[in-house]
Amino acid sequence: MLLRNATIATMRDGAPYGLLRQAALWVKDGRIAWVGPDTECPAEADEGEDMQGRLITPALIDCHTHIVHGGHRAGEFEMRLNGASYEEVARAGGGIVSTVTATRAASQAELLAGALRFADALIAEGAAVIEVKSGYGLDIDTELKMLRAARAIEGARDVRVKTSFLGAHALPKEYDGRKAEYIREVCLPALEAAHAEGLADAVDGFCEGIAFSVDEIEPVFARAKELGLPVKLHAEQLSHIGGTQLAARYGALSADHVEYANEADARALAAAGSVAVILPGAFYTIRETQAPPIEAFRAHAVPMALATDCNPGSSPLASLLLTMNMGCTLFRMTPEEALAGVTRNAAQALGLTDCGVIAPGKRADLAVWDVEHPAELSYRIGFNPLNRRIFGGKP
Amino acid sequence: MLLRNATIATMRDGAPYGLLRQAALWVKDGRIAWVGPDTECPAEADEGEDMQGRLITPALIDCHTHIVHGGHRAGEFEMRLNGASYEEVARAGGGIVSTVTATRAASQAELLAGALRFADALIAEGAAVIEVKSGYGLDIDTELKMLRAARAIEGARDVRVKTSFLGAHALPKEYDGRKAEYIREVCLPALEAAHAEGLADAVDGFCEGIAFSVDEIEPVFARAKELGLPVKLHAEQLSHIGGTQLAARYGALSADHVEYANEADARALAAAGSVAVILPGAFYTIRETQAPPIEAFRAHAVPMALATDCNPGSSPLASLLLTMNMGCTLFRMTPEEALAGVTRNAAQALGLTDCGVIAPGKRADLAVWDVEHPAELSYRIGFNPLNRRIFGGKP
Ligand SMILES: [Zn+2]
Ligand SMILES: [Zn+2]
Repeated sequence: MLLRNATIATMRDGAPYGLLRQAALWVKDGRIAWVGPDTECPAEADEGEDMQGRLITPALIDCHTHIVHGGHRAGEFEMRLNGASYEEVARAGGGIVSTVTATRAASQAELLAGALRFADALIAEGAAVIEVKSGYGLDIDTELKMLRAARAIEGARDVRVKTSFLGAHALPKEYDGRKAEYIREVCLPALEAAHAEGLADAVDGFCEGIAFSVDEIEPVFARAKELGLPVKLHAEQLSHIGGTQLAARYGALSADHVEYANEADARALAAAGSVAVILPGAFYTIRETQAPPIEAFRAHAVPMALATDCNPGSSPLASLLLTMNMGCTLFRMTPEEALAGVTRNAAQALGLTDCGVIAPGKRADLAVWDVEHPAELSYRIGFNPLNRRIFGGKP
Repeated sequence: MLLRNATIATMRDGAPYGLLRQAALWVKDGRIAWVGPDTECPAEADEGEDMQGRLITPALIDCHTHIVHGGHRAGEFEMRLNGASYEEVARAGGGIVSTVTATRAASQAELLAGALRFADALIAEGAAVIEVKSGYGLDIDTELKMLRAARAIEGARDVRVKTSFLGAHALPKEYDGRKAEYIREVCLPALEAAHAEGLADAVDGFCEGIAFSVDEIEPVFARAKELGLPVKLHAEQLSHIGGTQLAARYGALSADHVEYANEADARALAAAGSVAVILPGAFYTIRETQAPPIEAFRAHAVPMALATDCNPGSSPLASLLLTMNMGCTLFRMTPEEALAGVTRNAAQALGLTDCGVIAPGKRADLAVWDVEHPAELSYRIGFNPLNRRIFGGKP
């Protein structure tokens, strides 16, 4: 496959966006074989298709989602807007508890069907890789069921899935007041079972006052290390309690949310080679006012990714394009940072080295857009200009 | 056409959303012939299709857009995020001037093609009526060209278009310092020409410090009144200068934006029977902090509509569903108010009495959704659960 007369945002270093104009791209055996000026196409390439100046970018990557879950929380959303207090919502069975109950009750097939609605929405915007977390089971069987449903997405759609085990997401009611026991009796055995079954590509946690402390997360990370699994962490979303430093100490793939991270945290992430995963959908939905320290991440060259955090409570967001716009509008990220955030840096946040940029040898996971310039992808709101997606060289 | 076993949000008074469960809807000759309990279907109706509990709402209505325009302003969006000042952007040819230049340079066919991209996005979310304004020509020929392009949307797509003449949108460079002359020499003659050609369904203006004052808009409204055209107004968006009272004095269909409107303005709109059109996309994009007085509108029973304000500068937003979510998240509107805002009240803002609710005799403009409850439409972000749209009884 040869795509000619395109604008190509390679996302490699050099020019902004690694942008090539009047460029061509040759795909062979599912990989990018060559990319360069239209006038220098390799002789052995076939005749090629005229892209009429369309923009080609790496396919998008959503590096933080919770798309496998039961039920939804529209009722709770409506209750709150009608003036109900958090206590009233909780008394009506709302909050994460309702998602845990619905997820436990759902079959694996039902979880898969629910997840596919969101996977399809992401794919329709050019996504080729989706990260999916467990964490609404909070018992061994349901955590495994969630991860199996996540893996099954790959069988049902042309997309790659990276799973994260998130047993340390919340404390189930049956362990009320017994966090350490929950970690010991449920989280760690579930992690081992998930690993044994090949279900976990990484290990995640929710480090927050309302979830788990640094000390409570640490044994989970220690076990992940023993198992050879990379870690990542929901850190510093609502308060500053040290999650980012914990993540950095374990050489985490990423620290996620990080609204309350500070300059020292940015330095630590840089030193650890960790990505800061920015999640504006949650910031927007919970009406947070503390923005993540984008300037500090820039100053210390911490790679920034952007993800939907697609989940039924704090971020029912299923659009990476809108996430890009939110990164720009709410956090003053540049459109180039936004595009790097859902391509190159999102790949790094998942430990993937075969995608996220357009370069010889990389997978031919590409998105073709009906736009003139990559800034348009961040500029528009609630508008999908995808012309086509190419997955592993397949249109 | 008989649709059975549906959840129907009729948006009529009574129960929240006018919601009927286990309901059926009979369409005959493009109109709703009957709606009621599934068990009481009229005998003469055909056998019917099982909707499996899906939600049916009135088709959506976008009552405030600028989808006819030349060019885009992604470059300016990017410049600003890279730290350029408004002056630097202006010096680089940015701002509304660039849209005026591009719109003047575009052919009617090019304007139509550009508008259809946004119309298609709105239709894909179940829209059946789109309002479209002129206002980027600012000379007689281009204002007319814009309105002709807007009218041509109806020939190209199954959608109804309502046009608004917005000659008093901005002052073109050639009239610098001569606002009254611009109104007299361009705006009023263009309005008359548009009316003579049947191109204007209503007359709009932008009443703001950076645009036109109450005194400058008034002659335009006076002429509209002479011509028998209803008026509406961009009012109180960035400051409080009296536009809402002017609109109310002329019995306007609507006052739009209204972030800086006050309690007295709400009373005036209520007395005039005008709709407050809430435009959260612009509020979000320009990072406004003053929210419109939703409580006052509620207290005085001012009908509230929600619209995209889809335009290349302050609101490049092409999703009514996202607009609904923004209304809830940013302004604490309820999901029921949000849905009324894009159906019943949007119809009223356009002077339409044949759509916006599901009732016998109304047009069969319907949206069928893969959701259980209407609150889901506002709850989700960047996700389109439309199952199908029915336009004038046509699937
Ligand atoms: Zn998360
Ligand atoms: Zn407007």
